[in-house]
Amino acid sequence: MFKAELKAETLKGLVNIISTLVDEVKFSVTAEGMSLKAVDPAHVAMIELMLGKDAFKSFEADEVELGFDLDKVKDVLKLASSGDTIVMEQDSERGRLVFKVGNITRRMNLLDTANMSTPKVPEMPLKAFAELPAADFQRGIKASESISDHIILVMDTDIFQLRCEGDTDSAELSLESSDSVKIETPARVVSTYPLDYFSNLMKAIPAETVMRVEMDTNFPVKVVFGIADGAGVVRYLLAPRIEND
Amino acid sequence: MFKAELKAETLKGLVNIISTLVDEVKFSVTAEGMSLKAVDPAHVAMIELMLGKDAFKSFEADEVELGFDLDKVKDVLKLASSGDTIVMEQDSERGRLVFKVGNITRRMNLLDTANMSTPKVPEMPLKAFAELPAADFQRGIKASESISDHIILVMDTDIFQLRCEGDTDSAELSLESSDSVKIETPARVVSTYPLDYFSNLMKAIPAETVMRVEMDTNFPVKVVFGIADGAGVVRYLLAPRIEND
Amino acid sequence: MFKAELKAETLKGLVNIISTLVDEVKFSVTAEGMSLKAVDPAHVAMIELMLGKDAFKSFEADEVELGFDLDKVKDVLKLASSGDTIVMEQDSERGRLVFKVGNITRRMNLLDTANMSTPKVPEMPLKAFAELPAADFQRGIKASESISDHIILVMDTDIFQLRCEGDTDSAELSLESSDSVKIETPARVVSTYPLDYFSNLMKAIPAETVMRVEMDTNFPVKVVFGIADGAGVVRYLLAPRIEND
Repeated sequence: MFKAELKAETLKGLVNIISTLVDEVKFSVTAEGMSLKAVDPAHVAMIELMLGKDAFKSFEADEVELGFDLDKVKDVLKLASSGDTIVMEQDSERGRLVFKVGNITRRMNLLDTANMSTPKVPEMPLKAFAELPAADFQRGIKASESISDHIILVMDTDIFQLRCEGDTDSAELSLESSDSVKIETPARVVSTYPLDYFSNLMKAIPAETVMRVEMDTNFPVKVVFGIADGAGVVRYLLAPRIEND
Repeated sequence: MFKAELKAETLKGLVNIISTLVDEVKFSVTAEGMSLKAVDPAHVAMIELMLGKDAFKSFEADEVELGFDLDKVKDVLKLASSGDTIVMEQDSERGRLVFKVGNITRRMNLLDTANMSTPKVPEMPLKAFAELPAADFQRGIKASESISDHIILVMDTDIFQLRCEGDTDSAELSLESSDSVKIETPARVVSTYPLDYFSNLMKAIPAETVMRVEMDTNFPVKVVFGIADGAGVVRYLLAPRIEND
Repeated sequence: MFKAELKAETLKGLVNIISTLVDEVKFSVTAEGMSLKAVDPAHVAMIELMLGKDAFKSFEADEVELGFDLDKVKDVLKLASSGDTIVMEQDSERGRLVFKVGNITRRMNLLDTANMSTPKVPEMPLKAFAELPAADFQRGIKASESISDHIILVMDTDIFQLRCEGDTDSAELSLESSDSVKIETPARVVSTYPLDYFSNLMKAIPAETVMRVEMDTNFPVKVVFGIADGAGVVRYLLAPRIEND
């Protein structure tokens, strides 16, 4: 059994983030909320998302797995105006998910989750981290887009940098520790990551989000941020590009 | 002789609706206003439109037929800002129509109406009708667009439904009688119509319009609504898709 | 040496205008400001632009020539919000130009100006002129766009016209002398010009700009207007299309 009511904005935020990696997802539902783990087809990035029941206007559920086609959920979201509430309900007899938006009822087959594996998200302590406004990171990514297909992240005492180096051009975002930027690292760490993954992710994160970036030299980067006014959390893990110099 | 002055919005509303069916139209002008009857090339839908002289800021005309190329009229409308007045005048010597928008004068050849036939719009008493806000119908159509290429309209005591059924998905708009929705039918009526015609029509109708939908089982649907603040009226007739079950 | 600070809007206005004719430009910098002369690849139009140091928030420079790739400067402008300040600085050791927008630093190779010639802009006294709001001229161009590929400019006592004549259609902007329109000509002058150049130019000029149009029968037209709140000026020269009748 699953029946939940939530703000259209909450569902939209969720779908935007997940669909940067996958088109079909398996949500694990319990009485406490919904969660998912997914890896992109190229196995370069992973996402772990948890949405507690406080993110919902109402939430009733037994333990169940629900397979969603995100493109269809996007169609439902187009029917909602800002401020609208969306009701989701499992029709377990017919294997369908029923969405209600105002006087519209939209039914869709649930995906078969039997063949959808749950990736293992590795526990990975990363020694450096920065907390910064997503808006800054977004501008750094935008500045990089015409220059190269990978970016370099650097953390050092009181400084965070996002760099992009091309043959004739370069771009660099430099942030120092401040009221809105917190940086902690035991030493200088530097690592290279694919630009396109960051580009897609940053388009899906609201500009006012505070994001935590954890990294280490030649290790994956982990991006952690809250969703649904803190009632949910996203952990995004992206593999580094190891360069042989 | 034909000379008329009207708000750009009025002309725009008119052109948007007519161009869902045809690119070239023949207007019949009298001292009382303008009217047209048109059928789409596939003979699936018909439109009958009347615009009384009260829809105009000024209107002087003898009986005359005027052939318009709607794409060119759209070009003229792009020159007008909201609130602008458009002057239309026949230059009968040169067979041209002259539009004036502010300090711009735009002349275009009138189309030869000799070969443009006037379709006969059948008198068709339909036993059920609903009056509802266009905004609701528009949302029902939008919900249907990714599901199937036809929709089902249902009217029953105090209920109006717009449904769309696909293999794995369905959408449904359900409206009950209320202050803003009026439904009258002697019995349950159900009929299927092509989605794309409704889709185009609903994009051309302002959301705040009150539309009257008349129908009967396996009969055409008639959509009637006012334009130009009630100084004009549109009747739109769409053939059903008869299913052999 | 070159270091300057200016409003993003000023740089954007500049780049929009120049890029109607060329993709790469050579700026001549002195202690008093920047200037450029450029001709389009087809040698149909020329632009002469001067931006005095008052157009900048700060300006320090020796005499130097700087080669810009305008597409890259447009990328930089996308990083700036309205109201942002952009810092430009020459890194003469590395032959680079450094842009700073907030906490972003964007470096790009300067173009080699050795092979970029400076066109001679002819001194050309033209006997008729009109001063008019760009918004009017823009509407005249827009009205012409679906009709023909050239426009006719006419100036006569107290009247300025922009006309476009097609086989079945015509458009005309007519302006009389008024508080906002000034016309001076010793006699009637008429000349034909390519539409596409005017079309591109007018899209790059803010609607509220007052433009001065100087012309003579079968002579080039010169369009002169201020930029950067009067701290800069643009002179644009466009060859006529001489018709053999």
